[in-house]
Amino acid sequence: MSIVRKYSVRVLLGLLITAGISCADEKTSSLPVSSTSSESLDNEHPSLILTKAGVDKIRENLGSVPLFDTSLAAVKSEVDAEIAAGIETPIPKDYSGGYTHARHKKNFLILQKAGVLYQILDDEKYAIYIKDMLFQYEAMYKTLPKHPQTRSYARGKLFWQCLNDSNWLVYVSQAYDCVYNYLSAQERETLETNLFRPFADYISIENPQFYNRVHNHSTWGNAAVGMIGLVMNDKELIDRALYGIKGAGLQTGEKDNDGGFIYNKDGKAGFLANLEEPFSPDGYYTEGPYYQRYAMYPFLIFAEGLHNVKPEYKIFEHKDSVLLKSVNALLNLSDADGEFFPLNDGQKGMSYYSRELVTAVDIAYQYGGNNQGLLSIAEKQNKVLLDDSGLAVALGVKNGEAKPFEKKSINLTDGPDGKQGGVGILRYGNEDITLVFKYAAQGLSHGHYDKLSFSLYEREEEVLQDYGLARFVNIEQKGGGNYLKENTTWAKQTIAHNTLTINETSHFNGSYEIGSKHHSQLYLFDAENEAIQVVSAKETNAYGGIEMHRTLVMIKDDSFEKPYVLDIMKVLATENNQYDLPYYFMGQLMQTNFDYKTPNTLKALGAKNGYQHLYVEGVGTTTSPNAKILFLNEGKFYSLTTATNKTDKLYFTRIGATDPEFNLRRDAAFMIRRNNTKNTVFVSAIESHGGYSPVSEFAVNSNSSISEVNVVLDTAAYTGIRITDVNGTSRLFILANNTTSKDKSHSVTINNNEHQWTGAYYFK
Amino acid sequence: MSIVRKYSVRVLLGLLITAGISCADEKTSSLPVSSTSSESLDNEHPSLILTKAGVDKIRENLGSVPLFDTSLAAVKSEVDAEIAAGIETPIPKDYSGGYTHARHKKNFLILQKAGVLYQILDDEKYAIYIKDMLFQYEAMYKTLPKHPQTRSYARGKLFWQCLNDSNWLVYVSQAYDCVYNYLSAQERETLETNLFRPFADYISIENPQFYNRVHNHSTWGNAAVGMIGLVMNDKELIDRALYGIKGAGLQTGEKDNDGGFIYNKDGKAGFLANLEEPFSPDGYYTEGPYYQRYAMYPFLIFAEGLHNVKPEYKIFEHKDSVLLKSVNALLNLSDADGEFFPLNDGQKGMSYYSRELVTAVDIAYQYGGNNQGLLSIAEKQNKVLLDDSGLAVALGVKNGEAKPFEKKSINLTDGPDGKQGGVGILRYGNEDITLVFKYAAQGLSHGHYDKLSFSLYEREEEVLQDYGLARFVNIEQKGGGNYLKENTTWAKQTIAHNTLTINETSHFNGSYEIGSKHHSQLYLFDAENEAIQVVSAKETNAYGGIEMHRTLVMIKDDSFEKPYVLDIMKVLATENNQYDLPYYFMGQLMQTNFDYKTPNTLKALGAKNGYQHLYVEGVGTTTSPNAKILFLNEGKFYSLTTATNKTDKLYFTRIGATDPEFNLRRDAAFMIRRNNTKNTVFVSAIESHGGYSPVSEFAVNSNSSISEVNVVLDTAAYTGIRITDVNGTSRLFILANNTTSKDKSHSVTINNNEHQWTGAYYFK
Repeated sequence: MSIVRKYSVRVLLGLLITAGISCADEKTSSLPVSSTSSESLDNEHPSLILTKAGVDKIRENLGSVPLFDTSLAAVKSEVDAEIAAGIETPIPKDYSGGYTHARHKKNFLILQKAGVLYQILDDEKYAIYIKDMLFQYEAMYKTLPKHPQTRSYARGKLFWQCLNDSNWLVYVSQAYDCVYNYLSAQERETLETNLFRPFADYISIENPQFYNRVHNHSTWGNAAVGMIGLVMNDKELIDRALYGIKGAGLQTGEKDNDGGFIYNKDGKAGFLANLEEPFSPDGYYTEGPYYQRYAMYPFLIFAEGLHNVKPEYKIFEHKDSVLLKSVNALLNLSDADGEFFPLNDGQKGMSYYSRELVTAVDIAYQYGGNNQGLLSIAEKQNKVLLDDSGLAVALGVKNGEAKPFEKKSINLTDGPDGKQGGVGILRYGNEDITLVFKYAAQGLSHGHYDKLSFSLYEREEEVLQDYGLARFVNIEQKGGGNYLKENTTWAKQTIAHNTLTINETSHFNGSYEIGSKHHSQLYLFDAENEAIQVVSAKETNAYGGIEMHRTLVMIKDDSFEKPYVLDIMKVLATENNQYDLPYYFMGQLMQTNFDYKTPNTLKALGAKNGYQHLYVEGVGTTTSPNAKILFLNEGKFYSLTTATNKTDKLYFTRIGATDPEFNLRRDAAFMIRRNNTKNTVFVSAIESHGGYSPVSEFAVNSNSSISEVNVVLDTAAYTGIRITDVNGTSRLFILANNTTSKDKSHSVTINNNEHQWTGAYYFK
Repeated sequence: MSIVRKYSVRVLLGLLITAGISCADEKTSSLPVSSTSSESLDNEHPSLILTKAGVDKIRENLGSVPLFDTSLAAVKSEVDAEIAAGIETPIPKDYSGGYTHARHKKNFLILQKAGVLYQILDDEKYAIYIKDMLFQYEAMYKTLPKHPQTRSYARGKLFWQCLNDSNWLVYVSQAYDCVYNYLSAQERETLETNLFRPFADYISIENPQFYNRVHNHSTWGNAAVGMIGLVMNDKELIDRALYGIKGAGLQTGEKDNDGGFIYNKDGKAGFLANLEEPFSPDGYYTEGPYYQRYAMYPFLIFAEGLHNVKPEYKIFEHKDSVLLKSVNALLNLSDADGEFFPLNDGQKGMSYYSRELVTAVDIAYQYGGNNQGLLSIAEKQNKVLLDDSGLAVALGVKNGEAKPFEKKSINLTDGPDGKQGGVGILRYGNEDITLVFKYAAQGLSHGHYDKLSFSLYEREEEVLQDYGLARFVNIEQKGGGNYLKENTTWAKQTIAHNTLTINETSHFNGSYEIGSKHHSQLYLFDAENEAIQVVSAKETNAYGGIEMHRTLVMIKDDSFEKPYVLDIMKVLATENNQYDLPYYFMGQLMQTNFDYKTPNTLKALGAKNGYQHLYVEGVGTTTSPNAKILFLNEGKFYSLTTATNKTDKLYFTRIGATDPEFNLRRDAAFMIRRNNTKNTVFVSAIESHGGYSPVSEFAVNSNSSISEVNVVLDTAAYTGIRITDVNGTSRLFILANNTTSKDKSHSVTINNNEHQWTGAYYFK
């Protein structure tokens, strides 16, 4: 009976499509659908990621495409070792980082790979391995209770959270597709009835608070349900994947255990909503690159499956090809070593060498017009997917088509419509200097309270760091590998970032509810002239009644060895405030041009909002127009010169106070505190210069080239900064604060000299 | 007239040699000698480092030996740029790190290279450049007062200390040799009379407190005088170089500004004495590898010159070929990246990529029997000397003769006769794990008070660090690039090292005078079986009446992923003491198996002897038999398990207290404090295991494999340790504390089980 029903559904669907009824309409059809297994001709397998035609082509090319062959050999060796070690499906017990978690994670990764090997190598041992393991899971799953660990808002069964169960199904669906025809109809029936269908229902219908959201967790859930639906050719599951669960009642105000809202006021859910909401038209993912990387895999792998099984959905063209654009955006959100900028909750070290990015690069190459720059990334990854896209990439590399993936200055908007701020990246040369400026939206539950913060890189080295998250992902010994409480008390707080904290309170008072309603506004992004690049944005909601306007200028002047960064933070306030502007510099302090005192005992800078985690290592003041610090990091010298008032306090702080489990790194900052002040402007210049080699013991160009930085004009309409170098040459930068019109003429007089220009800024 | 006098000296010398009068006798001859210039046939130039025959061979091979050609091209490009920039010989003013210092240093390096280029390329522009610069120096030097900076015990003229003036002359002698025949006799006369001779006299006769010592400073001075003497063929200078200044009256008790004794009680001085005293028969240099590297250049370059000009001295065979052995010793004193272990005052990062080691490797290859292992180091250096030895190395590499330089476990004795302790290095695999155990003599003025300390490496990564020096060599902004006061107050102190401090007092009470009289005694070094390697030594003088006996065992057991280190520190004392045993672990603490408290404010651990530089970040105790810490460093997990008493206090400390100029790194330690105790034994096991990748986010083998470490026997005669792994398997290590005889039979009974063995230790 199942065959008959199945056949009729396929035929009817075909008729609908032929009749020009669009995909979006399909979900409203009330056709009877059900889970079935079939060997009918039109349900050919593999069809999801691998295809029959693709497998044929791969087999033809075996042994002649080095990158593909290398990747295949690596996968074979890994899977063979696992087969030799035997199958283990332990009763679930641990949090991430624990044994049962790691084992089940390993299992799904290996199952997917074994499936691919079965198809490519046509060696039955892989099919047997998959079948045996699937039936072990089937035997266990049918009576498996919820996972014993209770911390999650949506506990899984194999894992402590539905998120990881979804990971499992995304991968295992692919394995199932590969052995679909190897299994008997009876075997498939058993697996689908006892394992796959209940598994898909559990992570969706039984956990709508997990499944029916706009969130990276849900994307995994949607993809999991959709992929098993595609293999089982189950339209109900596919619809549930694409559009969410209809009428799932969620309470307003409920939160997940990362603090994110569960309730979605628009009621939008499912894969398409998850594609719609968090991605900007530029392909920036609102949670930041670390989570974009994580979400990339289900987005792209499900898209590839959908493309293969249901090409009529044209998923890769959806929202002006946002999926493909997102790969480009993500690659641009990395340093010279390919490591992603740790915006929001990002763990440092994650990079485009991750398996998710192998997927992303290969799929983007295959379905995004064979961008040859992607081939150079694939070469570095030294790994391709074992499917059609991976073969295409490996062939491209073999044929010498790779070109460098050039990263330039780029502005990436945030928000579904690109109107919720963004991230501006200024680059000089071949990523010699990179500045990352964040003026984005909150970034869902993984967002930090760091409006207008920035970080600075020299090639792959952090110069001014973004701390990233406070977590050791999957290291069981640190809080089960989950978020540590210092992520909330430190990493998310404003003071943990290179931006302004006012009155020792985080932006939006650290309230996710309020922060989620707002975003900064881009004021100017101009990177046309590499020698002077400007990014500027305003934030008016982080502190009620106060406007912060930060402008970062990357200037390459002939009298400087490398470009320097001019940092202008203008504040408009009607009340007296205390302003704290830290710079989390990396490396060791070499020198200052001001006196400071170091205390005998280290005490915390404050009691809350992150201040409790900072020790005060030194406090100074200066009567000079500028305070300057020199530091040495990874063999290079850096100087920070800041325009100071006599009453400014200059702090040296170090992270690590109130840290009873040594969860935080002992990193340093230089912080300017300005008290009892209304309107003000902070101006600093950050130079990279020279270097030191412990092998030659030569110190080269170890002194700042700047003799003075002065605020020469500070009105509502204009901010003017003079930078004087050690040879006495000076430059003037004036920003028009209220209009960036390219045609607008300006004229200001400073010290009896009139300066005239057209456009947003003056520089001479 | 000078020709006649010169000729007769040469003839007479030749007659003496022919007559079988040995080199050592030459210095006693009272032949009249003087400084002369000559174009006589037997005073052929170049003859010092380059030789006429060598230059011919180099020219023949130009363009066909890649490594040589690359090195030549690099040197040419560097020198051409300097020639283009013009000659600068500023009036001396600065300490090291300052402009005039760096400029004069650059000058001598470039002069030497220009000389070589003149010879090899036969391009007059290089000779002109040298001549012009030499005459600028000649014009300046004849009226130059002492250097204005007064910190040195032996102020130079071009530089703040005679040491650097000596550097200058060592290099410039080579340049002079290369243009000797280019210059007219009159020009030579002028240079020798106004520059070279007074220069040589100033650093020797006028500064005997610098010149007439056994010290790396003096070695430079000796070589400088000797090399210009060889070029000028001035026997008096050569003798002064080899044997020092006769009858120079030095006061007992005077010290240099590093705190080293100036007075030499044996009255020995000169190059041969400097070769005799600080080198052990194994080629270990008593100051440690950082200074050995520094001293290597004058030792070897002067030896090469002497070999070329006066082969009859057989300098490379001196003291059983100690110069050549020293190159092997030095290469063995490096980690997997070629960086030298920072014993004593060593700056981290210095490595066999330094120019001194290019010299050392090439000369050792040429004059030490063409060891093919050295070729692989030369390949890594990617640079050779532009002389006969460099050509030989480049030809060897070209001919594919390079073999890996294999570093194995090695014991290097200290002291002129090899009887003043030493440094034992245990290695496993291909430098997978390296342990460096120091039981040496004081190490002259650069020595630290760290008897029986050790450091531990995994490949090139420090696991348990030796702090090294507190100095930023040549970085002007940090104390003029010189030793910082924290070098004395912190880096030299015992508590700064992984060894035992008793009663908060450094070894020998931090007295250089007392420390210099003593050394530790090797008890056992046995590395025959890679699976169990032992180094053990005793120290009885660091604390009067107390014996410290430390034994380090590197054990590779099948049930462990990697070898672990068993650390046994046995103390015999008749009074109650406080013992502090720190481990300066690298990376971040992940977990402990005991409770500890972290204070709200950080205070220093003590008031002096280095304790004033340590903050107390946490203090704990345990009632368990063991305290265990887990830490993560550079993607690898490490566990330290230590046998504890209930009254032991377990400290987490961090360097950085009392550091008003941020001169110290904020590194951590775990420290065991045992109070009110006489005899005792500290036993710890240090494991490396597993790893974590921020890209895959997999944590592998992140837990210690040791469940317990117990002291099961602790008598004067024997120490027995049981190590039990997490699977319940246990091993017993018993050390005989008083005899290491291979033939001696032992029998001990522990818990009614009798254990019998022959030799120093039992392990089963």
